[in-house]
Amino acid sequence: MDVAQVLHMNGGKGENSYANNSLIQKKVIAMTKPIMEEALTNLYSSTSPSKLAIADLGCSSGPNTFLVTSEIIEVVDRICRNLNKEYPEYQVFLNDLPGNDFNAIFRSLPSFLETLKTRIQPGGGKCFFTGVPGSFYSRLFPTNSLNFVYSSYSLMWLSQVPEGVENNKGNIYMACTSPPNVLKAYYEQFQRDFTTFLECRSEELVVGGHMVLTLLGRRSSNPADKECCYIWELMALALNEMVDEGIIEEEKLDSFNIPQYTPSPDEVRLEVTKGGSFKIDRLEVSKVNWNPYNTDKLGLIILNPSEVRKLGDGYGVAKYMRAVAEPLLVSHFGEQIIDEVFIRYQKIVADRMAKEETEFVNVTVSMTKRDYMMIKLA
Amino acid sequence: MDVAQVLHMNGGKGENSYANNSLIQKKVIAMTKPIMEEALTNLYSSTSPSKLAIADLGCSSGPNTFLVTSEIIEVVDRICRNLNKEYPEYQVFLNDLPGNDFNAIFRSLPSFLETLKTRIQPGGGKCFFTGVPGSFYSRLFPTNSLNFVYSSYSLMWLSQVPEGVENNKGNIYMACTSPPNVLKAYYEQFQRDFTTFLECRSEELVVGGHMVLTLLGRRSSNPADKECCYIWELMALALNEMVDEGIIEEEKLDSFNIPQYTPSPDEVRLEVTKGGSFKIDRLEVSKVNWNPYNTDKLGLIILNPSEVRKLGDGYGVAKYMRAVAEPLLVSHFGEQIIDEVFIRYQKIVADRMAKEETEFVNVTVSMTKRDYMMIKLA
Repeated sequence: MDVAQVLHMNGGKGENSYANNSLIQKKVIAMTKPIMEEALTNLYSSTSPSKLAIADLGCSSGPNTFLVTSEIIEVVDRICRNLNKEYPEYQVFLNDLPGNDFNAIFRSLPSFLETLKTRIQPGGGKCFFTGVPGSFYSRLFPTNSLNFVYSSYSLMWLSQVPEGVENNKGNIYMACTSPPNVLKAYYEQFQRDFTTFLECRSEELVVGGHMVLTLLGRRSSNPADKECCYIWELMALALNEMVDEGIIEEEKLDSFNIPQYTPSPDEVRLEVTKGGSFKIDRLEVSKVNWNPYNTDKLGLIILNPSEVRKLGDGYGVAKYMRAVAEPLLVSHFGEQIIDEVFIRYQKIVADRMAKEETEFVNVTVSMTKRDYMMIKLA
Repeated sequence: MDVAQVLHMNGGKGENSYANNSLIQKKVIAMTKPIMEEALTNLYSSTSPSKLAIADLGCSSGPNTFLVTSEIIEVVDRICRNLNKEYPEYQVFLNDLPGNDFNAIFRSLPSFLETLKTRIQPGGGKCFFTGVPGSFYSRLFPTNSLNFVYSSYSLMWLSQVPEGVENNKGNIYMACTSPPNVLKAYYEQFQRDFTTFLECRSEELVVGGHMVLTLLGRRSSNPADKECCYIWELMALALNEMVDEGIIEEEKLDSFNIPQYTPSPDEVRLEVTKGGSFKIDRLEVSKVNWNPYNTDKLGLIILNPSEVRKLGDGYGVAKYMRAVAEPLLVSHFGEQIIDEVFIRYQKIVADRMAKEETEFVNVTVSMTKRDYMMIKLA
């Protein structure tokens, strides 16, 4: 599987689109906003760039795409007003893989720009938007051209399924029954990918530039811990049912693995420290309930409570997992099994959610690019 | 009609797509290549930017999109090799209106990058591609951020249909029967738009930056001359036939006008000189036959001769005019008349091409951004 060709969130605005099934991701953006604000405040305490080049890596398409940018710009606008600094020109680079629905983003840009105008100071900085197709595991921008890099819920995706995981039979991801070589292969793929990511960004960011990354992660030192792998184990259950019933071939399932790794804070820290180009300003863990309709202080509920009860807890989870995983599944298993997979998955998920606490763990790291001369001298 | 929302070439890869009907535009790019080469040579005679920021304004989607970029990069690569200068990093901004099919461009980017690698020096500059949705009659880029601006067959499109052309009855563009106020309104709209364009680009280009623009134009001083208006007059003929037969309402036709202006070299020179930010290095006129299959020294024929004879001369013209004008026509007249319009148009065009010489006139202008201090002192 060529992940860079296959992996993308479901495009468009339909029922199964990422645009309509990204509440969890929206919650996480809101939860981690204070860390982004802190990073931008730090950035402005030391510099006042006349042009602020911002990259959102793995921007996807839908309401969250502009939410991130809009919040970054509003925060900088407020900082500049408070510190009485000149407003910068904003150049925003929205990045995702080439299969992402950039047309949808671009067609909603004019109306977003109208809204944005009302949310920043009159006379605030001009905003220029561009789309950048490509893998963030490669160089995407010229040397020393970025001031601020942001990425939320994207970097747990690996550049490829690790090699040497052929014996991960019956599983589609790391699981408690995965052989040790599988866990090792996944971890090493994460290390290679995350190192490449940091190297590329360290070339692209100016000295003193900031980067705030949120990944799906885990607290446990065990990479096959339930807290990070359970969501995929339940999908494997649905697929295994279909193997048992002869709907999917066993070999087909055995050769399918999800290109993802959910690191612990220690694993993230280790790679950043090894690379040496970045100083960690903050490294935090947070949690978010699987249920996107879970009423909480963020008030992100979009259905009324009786609707949610009727649809059941599994509904929302199956929907957003479909928006995320459908292109991967279709590329391996074909179009025809998809509806069935997610009908079964919804039931399995609903059953488990009724019995146990189900949460995602997020790891957020905020860092600053060091002065190269300082690294050499250190 | 909101031109910025409606105007775009037909997307996708289908029979009526711009991607499959842009041979004329390809010919013009090839014809004007020496002027682009000269501009890049001039640019490199005075500077050696480590990063070369290039914008292609009105890039559309299809083979021509990457053709332009590829040629610019190959030329710079050759210049650097010959002058023994360091290869720059290339940051390419592909711009078009938000309705353009950017997904198609981005999805073919990985394979284009593979091809490009084979056409530049080993160790040549890294290439970074971005898409920029928006009207070039507004600011698209940060201040002083571009080195080279290119645009081919885009700038004859106006930002809007001129106001006050309600009495251009029976016509869809300037025509020999258009009242004088219509011609005046079109010209004034061109002046406003072209001035805005020059102002925006003069803010975005660095001092010494170059700009090469090719527009559909005319040699005559009469803006309603046949050499520039005939192609639309024949489309008006087809539409008028359909009015006579009751297929289209007369009022509907009377209220439709094409947002285009094809200036003379003198009109282009006047606006550039008035603005004062640019020095004209070259201003040239060229011609290209309407027939895209016209065998010529560029060898761009894609059909075999017997196929071309069978399809007739009108075929190719109707196809590329449809790829260009369909979204405008659909937005005003609706989907249902389109096939019929172009069946009739093809016949009318074929008839005229058999009897007369039919050519487009192109105006190409190459200019350099002046030093602001020098302008002030002058």
